[in-house]
Amino acid sequence: MKESWSSVDTLETNFRPLVVIELAKGTKEETIEWFTKRIVDKKANGGAQLLIKPLVTENGNENIYLVGASHLRLLLGAENVGLVKECNDNSMRAFTYSSRKTFKDFADDNQNFLTMSECQYIIKHELENLRAKDEKMIPGYPQAKLYPGKSIVRRLLTNGILVQIFPLHDREELKKLRHTWYGQVKIGYQPLDEIRCYFGETIALYFGFLEYFTFALIPMAVIGIPYYVFAWEDYDKYVMFATFNLLWSTVILEVWKRICAVMTYRWGTLLMKRQFEEPRPGFHGVLGINPVTGREEPVYSSIKRQLRIYLVSVPFVCLCLYFSLYVMMIYFDLEQWALDYHEENKSHFSSLMLYVPSIIYAVVIEIMNRIYRYAAEFLTSWENHRLESSYQNHLILKVLVFNFLNCFASLFYIAFVLFDMKLLRQSLATLLITSQILNQFAESLLPYWLQKRHMKKMKERMHSLKMDTDLSLVEQVNSEKEMGTYLGTFDDYLELFLQFGYVSLFSCVYPLAAVFAVLNNITEIYSDALKMCRVYKRPFAEPTANIGVWQLAFETMSVISVVTNCILIGMSPQVNALFPDSKMDLILTVALVEHLLLAIKFVMAFVIPDKPRDIQIKLAKLEFESLEALKQQ
Amino acid sequence: MKESWSSVDTLETNFRPLVVIELAKGTKEETIEWFTKRIVDKKANGGAQLLIKPLVTENGNENIYLVGASHLRLLLGAENVGLVKECNDNSMRAFTYSSRKTFKDFADDNQNFLTMSECQYIIKHELENLRAKDEKMIPGYPQAKLYPGKSIVRRLLTNGILVQIFPLHDREELKKLRHTWYGQVKIGYQPLDEIRCYFGETIALYFGFLEYFTFALIPMAVIGIPYYVFAWEDYDKYVMFATFNLLWSTVILEVWKRICAVMTYRWGTLLMKRQFEEPRPGFHGVLGINPVTGREEPVYSSIKRQLRIYLVSVPFVCLCLYFSLYVMMIYFDLEQWALDYHEENKSHFSSLMLYVPSIIYAVVIEIMNRIYRYAAEFLTSWENHRLESSYQNHLILKVLVFNFLNCFASLFYIAFVLFDMKLLRQSLATLLITSQILNQFAESLLPYWLQKRHMKKMKERMHSLKMDTDLSLVEQVNSEKEMGTYLGTFDDYLELFLQFGYVSLFSCVYPLAAVFAVLNNITEIYSDALKMCRVYKRPFAEPTANIGVWQLAFETMSVISVVTNCILIGMSPQVNALFPDSKMDLILTVALVEHLLLAIKFVMAFVIPDKPRDIQIKLAKLEFESLEALKQQ
Repeated sequence: MKESWSSVDTLETNFRPLVVIELAKGTKEETIEWFTKRIVDKKANGGAQLLIKPLVTENGNENIYLVGASHLRLLLGAENVGLVKECNDNSMRAFTYSSRKTFKDFADDNQNFLTMSECQYIIKHELENLRAKDEKMIPGYPQAKLYPGKSIVRRLLTNGILVQIFPLHDREELKKLRHTWYGQVKIGYQPLDEIRCYFGETIALYFGFLEYFTFALIPMAVIGIPYYVFAWEDYDKYVMFATFNLLWSTVILEVWKRICAVMTYRWGTLLMKRQFEEPRPGFHGVLGINPVTGREEPVYSSIKRQLRIYLVSVPFVCLCLYFSLYVMMIYFDLEQWALDYHEENKSHFSSLMLYVPSIIYAVVIEIMNRIYRYAAEFLTSWENHRLESSYQNHLILKVLVFNFLNCFASLFYIAFVLFDMKLLRQSLATLLITSQILNQFAESLLPYWLQKRHMKKMKERMHSLKMDTDLSLVEQVNSEKEMGTYLGTFDDYLELFLQFGYVSLFSCVYPLAAVFAVLNNITEIYSDALKMCRVYKRPFAEPTANIGVWQLAFETMSVISVVTNCILIGMSPQVNALFPDSKMDLILTVALVEHLLLAIKFVMAFVIPDKPRDIQIKLAKLEFESLEALKQQ
Repeated sequence: MKESWSSVDTLETNFRPLVVIELAKGTKEETIEWFTKRIVDKKANGGAQLLIKPLVTENGNENIYLVGASHLRLLLGAENVGLVKECNDNSMRAFTYSSRKTFKDFADDNQNFLTMSECQYIIKHELENLRAKDEKMIPGYPQAKLYPGKSIVRRLLTNGILVQIFPLHDREELKKLRHTWYGQVKIGYQPLDEIRCYFGETIALYFGFLEYFTFALIPMAVIGIPYYVFAWEDYDKYVMFATFNLLWSTVILEVWKRICAVMTYRWGTLLMKRQFEEPRPGFHGVLGINPVTGREEPVYSSIKRQLRIYLVSVPFVCLCLYFSLYVMMIYFDLEQWALDYHEENKSHFSSLMLYVPSIIYAVVIEIMNRIYRYAAEFLTSWENHRLESSYQNHLILKVLVFNFLNCFASLFYIAFVLFDMKLLRQSLATLLITSQILNQFAESLLPYWLQKRHMKKMKERMHSLKMDTDLSLVEQVNSEKEMGTYLGTFDDYLELFLQFGYVSLFSCVYPLAAVFAVLNNITEIYSDALKMCRVYKRPFAEPTANIGVWQLAFETMSVISVVTNCILIGMSPQVNALFPDSKMDLILTVALVEHLLLAIKFVMAFVIPDKPRDIQIKLAKLEFESLEALKQQ
C-alpha cells in the first residue's frame, strides 16, 4: 500500500474541481500557505494528498480554493471510507483497491466508477481527517490551539478562518436529474437511484420515505372518501375504519423497514461499516486521553453531562411544555370571550372578532416554536455531547416533544375535555390545511423566489445573461457560494411526522385528513425537489442505512393513535347508545378493545421480519464468507 | 498454519480422556474402523485429528470409546471455535495460535490454559464438524445416506448407531466445586466463575440469573411483610406497594441486562463471534444448494414452513388454549357443586368433598401440561426448522403461552369475573406454595434419590465400596453413562417465569408471594446445584451471551402485571369509596394511571443503557482497534 500512496502524482494535469473551500477575507498569507501545503502533502508526511487550486476571479484572488484529487487517490480514499460497491457477481462488497478488478464497471480509465457525490464525500472525509502533527497552533493565529491528532479543518471552522466547504454542482447532471425528477408531468416513481447518486443516501432516503408514505396513505384516503360523502355522522362504521387505520399504520411502518433495507442494500450503505465517530466540532473539554482510541483529545465527564441533561434540560423542557399548555388555556378563554361578545353584540365587528383569538394563537404558536427551537439548540449544545449523532438525537427528542404538544394539545383539549366533536373536526381541518399551505410556501416557494431574484441581480451585475449550463466555473462558484445551506432532513421529517399525527390521531373524526395529506405530499415531492435542485447549495452526500430515530417517532405516534381513536369511538353517541344502561360496561369494553389492538400491534411488529428474506440471505452469505475467510487465514 | 496441523502427533503418549462416545451394541466392525479412522485422520485429509481409545472393561469391549486430543490440537481448535480469552493487558480477545504468547497464563507447557469444559466443547465442535467427503453412505449401513459436507456424527446419531456422546466429569474439580457451591452452610454469592469453568456459560448464566432474581426479590419481600402483618385489608396503601413493585420489576429486568453484559464480557462470550449455524439433526428436505454457503444440503421451503406454522400449529395451540379454559370452567362448576353439596349435608364426607375438585383440577392440569409438551415438541419438530435456535424459540413460545394460561387462567377468572379477592388470595397462596414444593421434589430430590439408589446397586454389583474420587476410569465411565441427561435450562427458566408471574401479577393482593419466592429460590439454588453435580451427566459447555428469549418473556410478564395490578387496585372497596358518585370517574382514573405507568416503564427501559459504560468503552475500543488494523493492512 505504501507504494501506491507515494506513486500518486499530486500535480496531475487533468484537474477536476470537486469541492470549494472559502477562507475568510484577510486570512494571513502564512496560514494559507501552511494549509494548502498540508492538503497537498503526501499521505506519508501526514498530508491529505489532494489537489488544490486557487480560484482567480476578475477581482483577483478572493481566498476561494478548488479541491480535487487524482483518480487513484479517490479509489484509495473510497477504500478508506469503506465504500460498498456492486461486484461483477451482483453481490455488494466493501471496495478495496487490491480487489478493484472484481467490481462492476471498474476499469482503470473509467473515471465514472465513483459518482461525483462519492468523490466529494471522500474528499470531505479526507479533509476532515487532516490532523495536526506537532503544530501547537494554526500558524498566524496563536489563539487557535492545536494538539497532535486534532482535525485541522474543524479548528479552522470553529475559529472562523475557514468560512465554508461545499461540493460543486454538476450542471449537466443536475439538468438531467431535474428533468427526470420533476421536469415532466408524469405519474410514476421518483428516480431514487439517480437522486442517491447526486445527493447521497440520506436525502434519497427522505424522498423514498416521502414517496412510500404517500402511496401508503392512498388506501386510507380512498376508504376515507365514501365515509366522508355518505355517512358523515355515522360513527358506528368508523369503528371499522379506525381499526383498519390502526392496523394499517403498523403494517406500513414495518413494511417500510423492509423496503428501506432493500434500497440501502442496493446502495451499499446497509453493509457499510460505521466509521469510528470523531468528536463533533462544538465539543470541548480539558485535554485528556480518550479511553477508546488512546489518543489525546478533549474529555468531558459523562456524569456532568447527565447532570446537565436531567437537572437543567429536562426541567426546562417540562417548563416549556407547561407554558405552552398555559398559553393554550388563555386561547380557549379568549375564544370563549369572543363568542360571548359576539352573542351580546351580533355586529360585523364582533363576527370579525371571532377570528382574532385563532389568529393570535397561531402567531404565538409559531413564535414559541421558533424561540423554543433556539433554546433547544442552545441547551443541547451546552450539554456538550461528544458525538454529532448523540447531539442530533437529543435535539430531535426535545423539538419533537414540544412540537407534538404545540400542534396537538388544543385538539386533545377539544376532544377529551370539551367533548366537542364538531369543533374538533373543524379545528383539525383548519390546522392541517393551513399548516400545509404555510409550510409549502415558507419552505420552498419563498426561498426559490428569493434565490431567483438574487441570481437575476447577480447576473445583471456581471452583465452576462447566459444560460445556467453555460456559466463559467468562476461564475458557477460565485453563484453557488451565495446560495443557502441545506440544514438536513430534520424539518422535512418533522413536517411528515406532524402530518402523520393529524392523519392517525383523530382519523375516525376526520377521514378526509388522509386525502389532504396525499395531495400535500404529491406537491411536497415537487417543492422539495425544487428546493434541493435550485435553492440550496449542493449538500455533501451522507451514507445512511435507515431513517434512524424517526422510525421510533412514527411508531410511537402510531401507538398513541390507538389510544386516542379508541377513546373517540367510545365517546361517540352511537356507541354510547349500544350501552344504554351502564357507562361502565362501555368504558370497560373500550379499554379491552384498546388493549387488544395494542397487543395485536406489538405481535405484528414482532412477527413481520425487518428485512426481506433475500436480503437476509445475502447478508448471511457475506457473514459466512468472512467467517470462512478468517478460517483460511 | 498447514505446518501446525501436520505437526500434531496423533499418537501422543499422555492421553487424557475428555469425551465418551458410546456406539450401539453390535455395531459392525467396518463401521467402527471407518469412524475411528476418520476421527484420528489428519485435518488435511478431512479428519478431526483427535485421539481415540476403546474402553476395555471386565466384560470386554462394550463399544465405548474415549476421545482426547493433544495440547496443540486443542489450542488450534480453540482458535477454530473462536474462543475469547483474557490477554496480558486484561482486555478480552479472540484466541489465535499465532498470538498465543499475548494471552494471560499461557505457557507452552501449561495444560490448564484451556479449562476442561472448554476442551470438551472444542472436541464436541470438531466431532460435529467431521464431514463426509465422497462417502455415499455409512460403511456397513446402506440406509444411512451421506453426501459431501454432511456431518458424520449427526447421521450416526439419527440412525441410532451412535448412542450418545458426553463429556467426562472431573471428579477432583467437581468435589472442589461442590464444596464451595453448596457443601458449606454460608451466606454469600455462588462461585459463578467456577460454575462457568466447570459447566459452561449457559448453566452459569442460569444460576447467575437465579441468584440475581432472588436478591432482586428481597426488597419486595421486605416491604411486603409489614403490609401482610399490619394492614391486611387496607388496600389504599397497596397502591404505593403495587407502584413500587411495577417500577421495581422494570428496573431489575433492565439492570439484569447490564449485569449479564458484565459477566459475559468477563467470560468472553459477549465478544464471541456467532459461528455459522449448521442445520439441526432432525432437519430434513430434498437435497439442494444452500443459498448462503453454496454447499449441498437438505433444503426445505420457507413458505411450506410458514404454512405449517400458521395453518396447523397456531390453530392447534389456540384449540389447546380453548380446551384448557373449558376444563377450568368445569372445575369452577365442580367447585360450586361441592360447595352446594356441603351446604346441604354438612357432614364429614361433604367437607372432604370440598377438596376433591381442586385435587382433580391440579392432576388434570399436570396431565394436560405433559401431553401438551409432547404435542408441542412434535409439532415444532414437524415444522422442520433448519436451525436449533429457531426450533427452540418456537418450542419455548408454544409451551410458554400454554403454561401461562394453565397456571394463571383460574386466578384471572377468580379476580376479574368472580371478583372474589379472598378466594384469589387463597388460591394464589395454595398454587404458589404447592407448585414450589412439588417442583423441588420432582425436579431434584426424586432424581437424586433414584440416582443414589442406582449407584448403590451398581457398586454392590461391582463389589467395590470405594469413595467417589477413587473410582477407576472404567467405573467412572460406566456410572456416568447411566446417569440422566440434563435437557437444558428450559424447565428451570420456565419455573422462574411462572414464579415471577405469581409474584408480580397479583402482588397487591398477596404481598407475601415475594417472601415465598425468595425462600423457594434459596432452596432452589441448592437443589439445582445438587441436580447438576450429582444427578445428571456432565453437560457440554455452551457459550452464550444472554438469557435470550427469556428476557423478552419476563419483560412481557412485567407489562401484563401493570394491567392486572391497576385493575385489582381499581376494584378494591377503598379505592371505590374515593369515587362514591361515579364509577366512570374511577375507571377513567385507573385507565389513566395504567397508561402513565406503562409509559414510564417504556421510557425507563429506553433510558437505562443495556450495557454499563465501562463495557461499552471496552467494546468500542475493540471495534476501533479492528478498524485501525483494517486500515493498516
